[in-house]
Amino acid sequence: MKKGRFTIPTDESFVEGTREIAAKWGADAVRDCDGTRLPKNAREFGKVYNTYFVVRGDNDFARKHPEEAQRIFLLSDRTLAESSTVKIEFMKSYLADEFAPDYTNLHRWEVIDRTTGELITDWTVDQASHTVTVKNAVRMHEYTVTFMARVTWHPVQIYNYLTNNWTCEKQLTYDPAFPATKEYIKEHMQKWCDENPETDVVRFTTFLYQFALIFNQLGKEKFVEWFGYAQTANPVLMDAFEKETGIHLRAEDFVDGGCYNNAFRIPTGKFLQYMEFIEKFVSKTVGELVDICHKNGKEAMMFLGDDWIGSEPYGDHFKDMHLDAVVGSVGGGVTVRMLSEIPHVRYHEGRFLPYFFPDTFFEGNEDNAVAELNRNWLTARRAMMRKPLDRMGFGGYLSLAAKFPKFVDRVAEIADEFRTIYDAIDNKTPYCTLKVALLNAWGKKRSWMSHMVAHELWYQSIYSYQGVLEALSGLPVAVEFLSFEDIKNGVPKDIDVIINVGDANTAFSGGEYWLDERVLTSVREFVYNGGGFIGVGEPTAVLQNDRYFQLADVLGVDEEIGFTLSEDKYNIEKQAHEITEGIRNVDYGEDKKNIYALKGAKVLDIVFSDRFKRNMNVGEVKMAVNDYGKGRSFYITGIPYSFDNARLLYKAMVWTAHKDLNRAYASNVNTECNYYPTSKKYAVVNNSREEQVTDFYDVNGKKQTLTLRPMEIRWIKE
Amino acid sequence: MKKGRFTIPTDESFVEGTREIAAKWGADAVRDCDGTRLPKNAREFGKVYNTYFVVRGDNDFARKHPEEAQRIFLLSDRTLAESSTVKIEFMKSYLADEFAPDYTNLHRWEVIDRTTGELITDWTVDQASHTVTVKNAVRMHEYTVTFMARVTWHPVQIYNYLTNNWTCEKQLTYDPAFPATKEYIKEHMQKWCDENPETDVVRFTTFLYQFALIFNQLGKEKFVEWFGYAQTANPVLMDAFEKETGIHLRAEDFVDGGCYNNAFRIPTGKFLQYMEFIEKFVSKTVGELVDICHKNGKEAMMFLGDDWIGSEPYGDHFKDMHLDAVVGSVGGGVTVRMLSEIPHVRYHEGRFLPYFFPDTFFEGNEDNAVAELNRNWLTARRAMMRKPLDRMGFGGYLSLAAKFPKFVDRVAEIADEFRTIYDAIDNKTPYCTLKVALLNAWGKKRSWMSHMVAHELWYQSIYSYQGVLEALSGLPVAVEFLSFEDIKNGVPKDIDVIINVGDANTAFSGGEYWLDERVLTSVREFVYNGGGFIGVGEPTAVLQNDRYFQLADVLGVDEEIGFTLSEDKYNIEKQAHEITEGIRNVDYGEDKKNIYALKGAKVLDIVFSDRFKRNMNVGEVKMAVNDYGKGRSFYITGIPYSFDNARLLYKAMVWTAHKDLNRAYASNVNTECNYYPTSKKYAVVNNSREEQVTDFYDVNGKKQTLTLRPMEIRWIKE
Repeated sequence: MKKGRFTIPTDESFVEGTREIAAKWGADAVRDCDGTRLPKNAREFGKVYNTYFVVRGDNDFARKHPEEAQRIFLLSDRTLAESSTVKIEFMKSYLADEFAPDYTNLHRWEVIDRTTGELITDWTVDQASHTVTVKNAVRMHEYTVTFMARVTWHPVQIYNYLTNNWTCEKQLTYDPAFPATKEYIKEHMQKWCDENPETDVVRFTTFLYQFALIFNQLGKEKFVEWFGYAQTANPVLMDAFEKETGIHLRAEDFVDGGCYNNAFRIPTGKFLQYMEFIEKFVSKTVGELVDICHKNGKEAMMFLGDDWIGSEPYGDHFKDMHLDAVVGSVGGGVTVRMLSEIPHVRYHEGRFLPYFFPDTFFEGNEDNAVAELNRNWLTARRAMMRKPLDRMGFGGYLSLAAKFPKFVDRVAEIADEFRTIYDAIDNKTPYCTLKVALLNAWGKKRSWMSHMVAHELWYQSIYSYQGVLEALSGLPVAVEFLSFEDIKNGVPKDIDVIINVGDANTAFSGGEYWLDERVLTSVREFVYNGGGFIGVGEPTAVLQNDRYFQLADVLGVDEEIGFTLSEDKYNIEKQAHEITEGIRNVDYGEDKKNIYALKGAKVLDIVFSDRFKRNMNVGEVKMAVNDYGKGRSFYITGIPYSFDNARLLYKAMVWTAHKDLNRAYASNVNTECNYYPTSKKYAVVNNSREEQVTDFYDVNGKKQTLTLRPMEIRWIKE
Repeated sequence: MKKGRFTIPTDESFVEGTREIAAKWGADAVRDCDGTRLPKNAREFGKVYNTYFVVRGDNDFARKHPEEAQRIFLLSDRTLAESSTVKIEFMKSYLADEFAPDYTNLHRWEVIDRTTGELITDWTVDQASHTVTVKNAVRMHEYTVTFMARVTWHPVQIYNYLTNNWTCEKQLTYDPAFPATKEYIKEHMQKWCDENPETDVVRFTTFLYQFALIFNQLGKEKFVEWFGYAQTANPVLMDAFEKETGIHLRAEDFVDGGCYNNAFRIPTGKFLQYMEFIEKFVSKTVGELVDICHKNGKEAMMFLGDDWIGSEPYGDHFKDMHLDAVVGSVGGGVTVRMLSEIPHVRYHEGRFLPYFFPDTFFEGNEDNAVAELNRNWLTARRAMMRKPLDRMGFGGYLSLAAKFPKFVDRVAEIADEFRTIYDAIDNKTPYCTLKVALLNAWGKKRSWMSHMVAHELWYQSIYSYQGVLEALSGLPVAVEFLSFEDIKNGVPKDIDVIINVGDANTAFSGGEYWLDERVLTSVREFVYNGGGFIGVGEPTAVLQNDRYFQLADVLGVDEEIGFTLSEDKYNIEKQAHEITEGIRNVDYGEDKKNIYALKGAKVLDIVFSDRFKRNMNVGEVKMAVNDYGKGRSFYITGIPYSFDNARLLYKAMVWTAHKDLNRAYASNVNTECNYYPTSKKYAVVNNSREEQVTDFYDVNGKKQTLTLRPMEIRWIKE
């Protein structure tokens, strides 16, 4: 198959070029792009996608209903009481164009003494200067105002506007939780369908609530959280939630001391319930819009980004939106899997890199553009070999890409490779050596979404953990995401290995969940009976009594936080092990300090300070294994994604699960093997841009030696 | 003065040599040493010191009163319940010769479910096999037995015995909290005085309770805590304590989940009260022995080590022991100050390094011996310039030292230099630029004793903090130790700078004390009004709401523990500052990761990962300053002792306290200046073994340039 599953951007000024490239790439759909219009004859290229906004874009409507603007709770700067009266200029650190204090909801505002946590009632507000005056304050305490604000400029437009120096009108927001907007968005949807008969696919960008994106007084980003529910603080919804559940939501429940319930915080029960409530509302509301699309003969596609809050694709209500498809940006293997595994839609599309924008597509930069294309594809391809997207596409100005013929040719090869992979997998599950469960506070709802802040952005605190997901996205294992609630009464029978990864006290390692004896007992029982447990960073960590890693007994390691310095530590010798055999460069990323091995554990790597030599109480363990009943554990301080690290993780999983490594396996760490039982094919993949020689073992352990070209996929028929 | 203030070891086989060396060194006292006997004519060399043990050494008495052996609570290994019955061999990890389970006190033993913390009552014990059987256990929970044991071999003797392959009798212990021993130790004291008329000074080694020193089943050290009160678990005392205070002490109060209330743990109120109770008992008991010495015309000297528990030299009851002197080993400046500032004794003596033992004093090793001597002296000398010991001395076999004439000559020079320093200071306080308070949970009671586990041993988790004390020991500042209780109602008026140093949640940084608004308010008020605050490592850190450093507002920095990743951080530019001017090599030691600067703080050092470049949300701050009201703060991630680091700390103190640096100051970091107002002398000291040129400023800021010989002290008369 040399055509299809491919979407290209185009515009009315590039019809001839589009025709030529569409043929080369086998495109069967076109889409518009910011600031462009599709050509009149767009349908000749296949399906036509058109962008659609739900809660922005109609400033006339918004101006008529300022009371229906979206709402958010914002936290002022902490302000020191220098006397018994404190004046807090609560808008001082916020962009005046983005937020307007909502004085009609003053009863929802809160003043808090942040030194004691006490709620303060003795305060007044001056609306002209946006200043709260706290009376009878305690000197040297810090005070904050949490104020409700109307969102008067759509955050994503702010970003584009300020980045590109736009001068167009600033888009207001409106919220269908309010009555007028509720009616309006349905009418508008129908009207839009009527006006856009050529559109086959309504590309929702996106739905009702923007992820938290807050700008400061200088127009610089102040807070960004791709998972943030801050902008769902609608008074109608809050009141309805209270009516339904009996739970009164305070301003503090939203601002969370300035953390805004970000994904790293262990979610409170209250917050989880409100999320669920929002999901129901979003799904119902969007479902009605999607039904209108369907009635008009159009498909509905969700862009996973922007106003996606409340439409959790792995949540229980996602199905009620009746969507046909999702599309999202592909940064690597994790984003592929995050998209490709979304249930209840007929197809999944990925927008690959680079964008066809002038920052990459300028004179003389063709080789770099091709390199970026290969980098993006090779990373994503690992995941595509496991659970492919149904479609791929690009964004930007096709006319720019057209100027780079090598780039165009390479995309053509990739498009063909993609279709070959897709056909080989044939929507069946590839062979999995074992099943691994990622255990964190979010579980299934945030499948493939852990350890992220803003989409694809690099954070130093994260990459050493996110590497686990990136590795898993391309490894021959089945992956499941479990929450602590899911395992309280026992680990599901089909799980071979549990991974717990992250910093202490975060939602990802689990924090106080590890004080629940059901959680501890359940995991211990699982391992004791032969299961595998892998901990990365500060797994199971929470400060209680004399242990920091609550499952130190299972892991065979703990972190010295100063309380057991008096206990002598003799287990400081590095030992050879099958897991580390053949792994040349273990990269611990940000690493963890002060990890020590308990008696009985096997230390696989340890480093010593060059400041002093002793025979005990020295050394920092980086990697260890432990036996526990019939089960096994593996610990490592950090594991950013690299070929070696991905292999190390795989070997650790195989070893802890008592599986045989040499089945459907390619020994060279730069290569990987996927096996497709239904099509009886092996794909031995060279992930590198150099030639590689590898031993290849089939599923029965039979070996042959292969030489693979750079980036090659060698298909081997059984 | 060319004689005096100097103690030498000698023995009966080296009388002639002693005479010669004693003259060279100006010795005026002799002492015995392990395995030696003093010559008959010892008194010709001056005062005679003799070692005395209180609670060991008389096995005949001990055997007659096995019920009066010292007691300790020990924690078994955590044992996993693999079924509803768990057998715990509680002596498995302990040295059978050191401890005998005390079945007469079975009612004090505890079985605990360590997974829930629950106290378990359904258990039985088999005395023959030292096994506890827990019934109705919960599978996959861990259980421990805390058992009372008799200490049947004195821990210090175990150490010497096993290290030196001794074969002598193993010394039993006895405890004067019991009635027979109470009488016995007084009688024995009088008898000993009668039998040792030549003794001028009874060198107590030491008193009643050994610091925690626990050996494992292989005779290897298992647990060591120089501050440990574990061996004070005497049933008579526990009951008396309950009678006096109404507080019932449980076994768990002693074993503390295996941490044994080590000095890094934030002490509980209960434990602090029991310490106080023990101090009273020890002081009273020892006071009676010391009175006997005095009645017999002898002085009483305490060796600060071994059985020193309960005799806290900075505690409120130390004075009741009526001691004449203390002696201790000198490892560096901190140990000098720890000894020299002890109140309520007439003189303080330090035992310098190296010991005259064959491990140093062997053929061909003279240069190394001299080097070790210089290293020890130069480090200690800094502290001696501030608050000198009254006497110095050495230990070991003088005949060995005599074989190294260069060594003997160098000691003679040092002895003279010591006496010159001592005379110049004349027991008066040298000029101090400012007064600094170390703020931790122990305060005054553990003056110069923070961040230690075992005496002088290097621990990776500590040296980066202990460097603060080592630097202070020789800096021209007054030093006070304050507890959080001391400052709850305000920082004492005479304090210029507060230092808080240590890892989060330890007694040294303060942990939950920082949740007390009085502590926060008090320190803020102090800084706001112009005081200085210095934080090292994780100062004021405890996990609460969205802050980790509770005084992040004062410090201008906080630690990213994963909750504020969503908040954008722009303050990432390193700035020049007078504190860092001229400091070449800042050594952060073990360092801290993930420190970021708040708005308004000035970053003095920041490092960036080479993995990725961004313009925000990157970088790890190592050092920063902040303005707060009229006050100032300084933060650094770690500060092991070095010449540069000591200078950096000094400059930071001077800057935060708004003082003038160029007063009684030597600009070259390898040199330091001390000023003695009463004797109108400056001592400009070259701490290095190389020649140094330095600008010297007198107390009025008048400058001159000096060239100092290696190790020289240049005395300059005003």
